[in-house]
Amino acid sequence: MSKNFRIGIIGLGQIGNYLYHELNRKKKDIENKTGKKINIIGISAKNKNKKRKYKINKKIFYSNPFDVIKKRPNVIFEVIGSPDGISRKIVETSLKNGIHVITPNKALIAKHGNYLTRLAEKNNVNLEFEASVAGGIPILRTLKEDLSTNKINKVSGILNGTTNYILTEMENTNQNFKKVLYKAQKLGYAEPINPKLDLNGFDAFAKVRILSSLSFNSKIASNKCLMEGIENIDIKDIKIANQLGMRIKLLGLTELINGKLFERVHPCLVDKKSYIGNVNGVMNAVIINGEPVGENILQGEGAGPGPTSSSLLSDLMFVLRGNIQKPFGIPYKQLKQYKSYNLENYSNSLYLRFEVKDVPGVMSKITDKLAKFKISIKRLIQTPGNKSKKATIIMITHKTTELNIQKCLKIINKDKNTLKPATLIRIFN
Amino acid sequence: MSKNFRIGIIGLGQIGNYLYHELNRKKKDIENKTGKKINIIGISAKNKNKKRKYKINKKIFYSNPFDVIKKRPNVIFEVIGSPDGISRKIVETSLKNGIHVITPNKALIAKHGNYLTRLAEKNNVNLEFEASVAGGIPILRTLKEDLSTNKINKVSGILNGTTNYILTEMENTNQNFKKVLYKAQKLGYAEPINPKLDLNGFDAFAKVRILSSLSFNSKIASNKCLMEGIENIDIKDIKIANQLGMRIKLLGLTELINGKLFERVHPCLVDKKSYIGNVNGVMNAVIINGEPVGENILQGEGAGPGPTSSSLLSDLMFVLRGNIQKPFGIPYKQLKQYKSYNLENYSNSLYLRFEVKDVPGVMSKITDKLAKFKISIKRLIQTPGNKSKKATIIMITHKTTELNIQKCLKIINKDKNTLKPATLIRIFN
Repeated sequence: MSKNFRIGIIGLGQIGNYLYHELNRKKKDIENKTGKKINIIGISAKNKNKKRKYKINKKIFYSNPFDVIKKRPNVIFEVIGSPDGISRKIVETSLKNGIHVITPNKALIAKHGNYLTRLAEKNNVNLEFEASVAGGIPILRTLKEDLSTNKINKVSGILNGTTNYILTEMENTNQNFKKVLYKAQKLGYAEPINPKLDLNGFDAFAKVRILSSLSFNSKIASNKCLMEGIENIDIKDIKIANQLGMRIKLLGLTELINGKLFERVHPCLVDKKSYIGNVNGVMNAVIINGEPVGENILQGEGAGPGPTSSSLLSDLMFVLRGNIQKPFGIPYKQLKQYKSYNLENYSNSLYLRFEVKDVPGVMSKITDKLAKFKISIKRLIQTPGNKSKKATIIMITHKTTELNIQKCLKIINKDKNTLKPATLIRIFN
Repeated sequence: MSKNFRIGIIGLGQIGNYLYHELNRKKKDIENKTGKKINIIGISAKNKNKKRKYKINKKIFYSNPFDVIKKRPNVIFEVIGSPDGISRKIVETSLKNGIHVITPNKALIAKHGNYLTRLAEKNNVNLEFEASVAGGIPILRTLKEDLSTNKINKVSGILNGTTNYILTEMENTNQNFKKVLYKAQKLGYAEPINPKLDLNGFDAFAKVRILSSLSFNSKIASNKCLMEGIENIDIKDIKIANQLGMRIKLLGLTELINGKLFERVHPCLVDKKSYIGNVNGVMNAVIINGEPVGENILQGEGAGPGPTSSSLLSDLMFVLRGNIQKPFGIPYKQLKQYKSYNLENYSNSLYLRFEVKDVPGVMSKITDKLAKFKISIKRLIQTPGNKSKKATIIMITHKTTELNIQKCLKIINKDKNTLKPATLIRIFN
């Protein structure tokens, strides 16, 4: 590596622009710490003249991102963020040309990680993506390096700040999902045009995939065991959870059960007094269970230009120190491939909310069906609806399998007295 | 580095013995991940035939630790743990002979870190001590690598599991300090013979010194701004804190205030609902405030053979990957040296407990003195003692400087109606 290290940045949105600013600001510090001079030799974005928070040097601006690659930088920051298309093309071309790549693009890694890893290894360059999971929290390097001799049993956490903000705000303000989403969009915590990928668990699931690979030394999986978002969480559920001493959180989890990989993202009821029950607002948290280290928790800001830049620059420092390393810690060939866990066997205590007509026999019909599927009830709360002839029935069940509850709910949901499909929230333990 | 990597272990107590076991057990995994074969070529302890949890290979046992060094290992694990004497001699000799050193010995690093760093750099070997602070939590590498381009403003946390266990247990069982200490000793959470270094804050202070160096790129300091332990925390204080919605925690803190280094360890009253107020038992937690990363929290088991071995092996992996690095992240020459912050200016809201004779005029005398030193009272609780003629007065003050409160307490403590020196606990904000 030459002493003068050439950097290209593709994408100058909120993240890219902040990164550009940080690189210029921390230039001297980085040089001191690594002994390498750094130099931004090319930047690219759609619009050269867009108003940006931090002024860019237009002399090194290229409308075509591939013109930056042609300038032969040592490293490219890909900060556009699409899971395919131009982002993939840029990363691919860079790696093929022996250029290190640093990216916060979780969707890309979760989708094409296996392929891109082989490409990086083949060309003997780094592909670093610390910023792709949990923003400023150094979770990937913790798994890849610090805990690398541990046997990781399970990783779980709050991996999406948007949904955590919405759930927290619903509880605090007593406002419904739509109102709070609108507020989150105004504050920049949720995407203004299409917030779907945060809300439906897709974003968190991409992060779970990456965490699995590093935790279990496995290839990125393609099966989706269970992915549910928070779109159907009603303010009613939040209030009732509150009465039960619980809180609703969207959790991402991954673990190996009898050698099968079980990746999932879904809302959970968690104890208000638990650690995870107190990670609120836009914060992210990851809990690692390893042997012999025990439980390790990392918490921090999961998004935003500052935390993301911190992780992007930690990747740069890693590259500057000349640490060529396999993207997933060990050579691609050694990565294992696990079969998926059968969701039907997943067993949980459940929170169920039924919206029904307030007519005689409704309750007995539901309890009959539950009994038929051997689902036993731990707690039952019935509240009359605001309008007459409607009732809300809440049940907390003992542990039951997904197979049984899904079959059972299918029948109950079809019943003429059922006003809308039952809400099911798993209880975290 | 040769492909066959030779390892020596000096010290086969709880930690050393477990490490020996882990190294044997993880041999294959380490080889897979690093491409290096590892081989334990020598072990040493006082007693060859002592009963140990994991059986040792007596063929590689040497009564004299320097005989292990003579076998020319590539790395030595120093796991005896004394701040001087034999530990220092072993580390010194190893470094001088071009042998990498890995140690969990916080006392040694906090005392001789500057000298040993120069020695390591001169001989171009690693001196790694991840396990010296907060057990299995990868806090040092997080500061040294992952957050290395951040400007760290403040680091604080619960750095000693023994004291945290005692405080938690006092609250939970309503038993006094002595009883709980005895229990902690029986459970192995406190040293059986001399627990003083945990209780008086010394252990936490050593960790604070190491955290400062990595956070602020500075030499290990020698001044002790403020070090207080938990020996004087009474069950009364715990109960009253509880009534006030607070908990007592022994915190370690370091920050730069106007370019002056302020390192301190002392009990704090923290909000029961706060994050730090809910880190209980033997858990450790470190909170890093950095820019631009924001607040980063790491929590995990702070001691014990498992977590400590996890960190010791992470150091080994680091060495095996061939990453020769300065012990404090940057060359010794570039480390700064900060002047100490003047403790007298430290300003806090305070909890004060006075034990006094229950005679007329006592209260007015105390409030008069406080007023004289411009210490204003926010809250006052007076409770009669169990025996007549004694009273306990609790005060929560507004913010006041150490200078004023110490001067004031000196006078009050001398008063003939004061039965014992006032208890002062700073309120964390």
